[in-house]
Amino acid sequence: MSGDDHLRLNLFTMNSVDHVSPGSWTHPGDQSHRYTDRDYWTDVARTAERGGFSSVFFADVRGVYDVYGGDRETAIRKGVQTPANDPSYLVPAMAEVTDDLGFALTRSTTYTHPYQLAREFSTLDHLTDGRIAFNVVTSYLDSAATNLGLDERMDKATRYDRADEFMDVCYALWEESWDEDAVVRDAERGLYADPDGVRTIDHEGEHFDVPGPHGCEPSPQRTPVVFQAGSSDRGREFAAANAEAVFCSQPTEGSVVEYVEDLRERAAALGRDSDSLAFFPGIVPVVGETAAAAEAKHEALVEHVDVEASLALLSGFLDVDLSELDPDRRIEHIETDAIQGTMNAFTRSDPDRDWTVREVAEFSGLGTTSPVVVGTPEAVADELERWYREVGIDGFNVKEVVRTGSLDDFVDLVCPVLRERGLLPQEPTAGTLRERLLGDGPRLAADHPARS
Amino acid sequence: MSGDDHLRLNLFTMNSVDHVSPGSWTHPGDQSHRYTDRDYWTDVARTAERGGFSSVFFADVRGVYDVYGGDRETAIRKGVQTPANDPSYLVPAMAEVTDDLGFALTRSTTYTHPYQLAREFSTLDHLTDGRIAFNVVTSYLDSAATNLGLDERMDKATRYDRADEFMDVCYALWEESWDEDAVVRDAERGLYADPDGVRTIDHEGEHFDVPGPHGCEPSPQRTPVVFQAGSSDRGREFAAANAEAVFCSQPTEGSVVEYVEDLRERAAALGRDSDSLAFFPGIVPVVGETAAAAEAKHEALVEHVDVEASLALLSGFLDVDLSELDPDRRIEHIETDAIQGTMNAFTRSDPDRDWTVREVAEFSGLGTTSPVVVGTPEAVADELERWYREVGIDGFNVKEVVRTGSLDDFVDLVCPVLRERGLLPQEPTAGTLRERLLGDGPRLAADHPARS
Repeated sequence: MSGDDHLRLNLFTMNSVDHVSPGSWTHPGDQSHRYTDRDYWTDVARTAERGGFSSVFFADVRGVYDVYGGDRETAIRKGVQTPANDPSYLVPAMAEVTDDLGFALTRSTTYTHPYQLAREFSTLDHLTDGRIAFNVVTSYLDSAATNLGLDERMDKATRYDRADEFMDVCYALWEESWDEDAVVRDAERGLYADPDGVRTIDHEGEHFDVPGPHGCEPSPQRTPVVFQAGSSDRGREFAAANAEAVFCSQPTEGSVVEYVEDLRERAAALGRDSDSLAFFPGIVPVVGETAAAAEAKHEALVEHVDVEASLALLSGFLDVDLSELDPDRRIEHIETDAIQGTMNAFTRSDPDRDWTVREVAEFSGLGTTSPVVVGTPEAVADELERWYREVGIDGFNVKEVVRTGSLDDFVDLVCPVLRERGLLPQEPTAGTLRERLLGDGPRLAADHPARS
Repeated sequence: MSGDDHLRLNLFTMNSVDHVSPGSWTHPGDQSHRYTDRDYWTDVARTAERGGFSSVFFADVRGVYDVYGGDRETAIRKGVQTPANDPSYLVPAMAEVTDDLGFALTRSTTYTHPYQLAREFSTLDHLTDGRIAFNVVTSYLDSAATNLGLDERMDKATRYDRADEFMDVCYALWEESWDEDAVVRDAERGLYADPDGVRTIDHEGEHFDVPGPHGCEPSPQRTPVVFQAGSSDRGREFAAANAEAVFCSQPTEGSVVEYVEDLRERAAALGRDSDSLAFFPGIVPVVGETAAAAEAKHEALVEHVDVEASLALLSGFLDVDLSELDPDRRIEHIETDAIQGTMNAFTRSDPDRDWTVREVAEFSGLGTTSPVVVGTPEAVADELERWYREVGIDGFNVKEVVRTGSLDDFVDLVCPVLRERGLLPQEPTAGTLRERLLGDGPRLAADHPARS
């Protein structure tokens, strides 16, 4: 956690018509279909910067959600994260119209090569003067694997083994290959770089052989800020060893507290300063000028949740075909262990409630597992402040429902209250994304495993 | 060739300190080292658009030039296309500050996957409203192969076989997977896309199995403008089957004429309208307000050519270690067939001259194989006009030496003369890059093999 007393905000979004609020693109005034336009995104960037956001956090997925019903029909019909464009190309345009806003990019270690990815992030870190983060994921859809040259998706253990080695290669390319003073730029002597300061990394591993050296000179942050969101045991181990910032997708305060404590313990066990990890739970703010206005907005949002689309999205997340269940069946009467287990993630948020499948889909339709906070600007700010002070998190990944109405509301109504309370700085803090998000930088902390 | 009487200009550059004029970064005032800054590139974009350029054409290379002397020392010391950042991320920022300028991106089919590349170009085509071209290359440096997961570089035949299949997969994803009216966006019915209009491509081949469908909805051009620059027999076959625009790197007028005729014949043999291919020889303009000023500039440029860096670059191009030759040895006395053959490409430009290795390096140091045109704005315009009218080409890939001085000179001094003569339009022509560059579009021509 950083030294100052500011919370950090990241806008959580995706380069697609639908992200995690299935059906919301049908809400009156929703602009999601403009995701293909550069202007849509530069407007988002300006609004987020005006609100004092630290970064825009881009989700991404490869493949199509074809678990539900065993085919892709629902996903295509309802636009369930399909089609989805590459988010990384939004960054340079959004950087061009902002001064300080950062950008977190989700990239999978399963379908790319570390020598390639390292170059892409170095380039972006140069072009944005160090405003880049890398949200490391390992992918979960079979349809991505088959399209990208694998016969089938790797099992989870293999994906994480590969991710471990992938990060080792990237760290070596980013941190070790070029000395800080390797680039000399001495025109008189015709010497651009000193070859003694540019080293091979000679990586030979299970998944990759990468001799190096890195093809890029050092960028402001070298390693981008490392984000992660692992929730399984193996995922938590990976996050503890790699993450500087953690996106928590637990649905309740209690489960976030448990998660934060667990990750800090695991990080400490690896020799890291456990306070150095920053945590960002997802949150879905629904704000109105009055409590009644906020409630009315919330009702309209719930009305536009597309239950079938929501089930298609959940089926992909859970790798379980929920089309086989009667939507009006109560969860307690579902006997399949896999489904019961995975549904628990959602029903835990209100354990006494007698949930049906449809109700779970509706609940998760405003931002999957994240808490929804409905109220006046003051009430929403109260809840954010309470989480910040009592749960011990560092800020929030703010999820949109209506685009761009949810963000506009938040920036126009809630951010001024947060600023007034001193929870957001009056002026954007200067420096790289690492400095703005973690209060330290521009380089990876000395206790990070990549540097030791 | 297009119907109107305008020539087209592309700025040929690279996201690195050095491109094809080794040593020029040491020239007084040269700004090449600012290649890591977004501002450098947005200035280049504004200048190119002001000059009436159709596009900025980005070269790219993976790996390090380590053929010369058998190691990477010279390449790193002299900045020979090393370090080099990813050019694709320059595009959205440069698009943000321009209205019509296009962007041609060099990408290798050897080290990426078509399902991945297809998404990247679709995203860029969406974000730029159809201002994108794809310069297809197959790569030539072993060091790229070893870093990107291959034991060694594929042989040339295999690289081109893979490139053929790669393009087939991309064409199917871009042209066939989504019907023009597949995206319905009917909020009332909650129908984003019609699944009947979104098809798998079911590609099963030697190098790739890609079921599809494409993960992106149709972009303005669907397939980006296809550029190619094949010069070997196999490369020419590939260009004839795929290219809409051809970058000719032949060093003399005669060799360009031969090349253009040969490619048109090959294209016709494949059932294409041979006039539909557009040709762009590289050219290195050195312009001054007087002939004497131009000559003085040229002398200063030649003085800053770094002979050793030039030989390192050529060694990579030719896959022959030129460090083994005495720089003062005359070419005719070099008995190794490989070297003699490849050096001929350079010495052909002045067959009666008794070239030494050093002289070849100096000659090629201002833009490798492209003709250098030195003179007043009128004299340079005369030469461009003569090529345009007599050689039957469609425009030029204009190479920089001093950055950004070469471009600034050309835009400030030569472009007004071309505009006055009606060789450049008074106002930028509207439309996609395909329409601006080829006079037709926005889709691939009906006779292109991808559509038949």
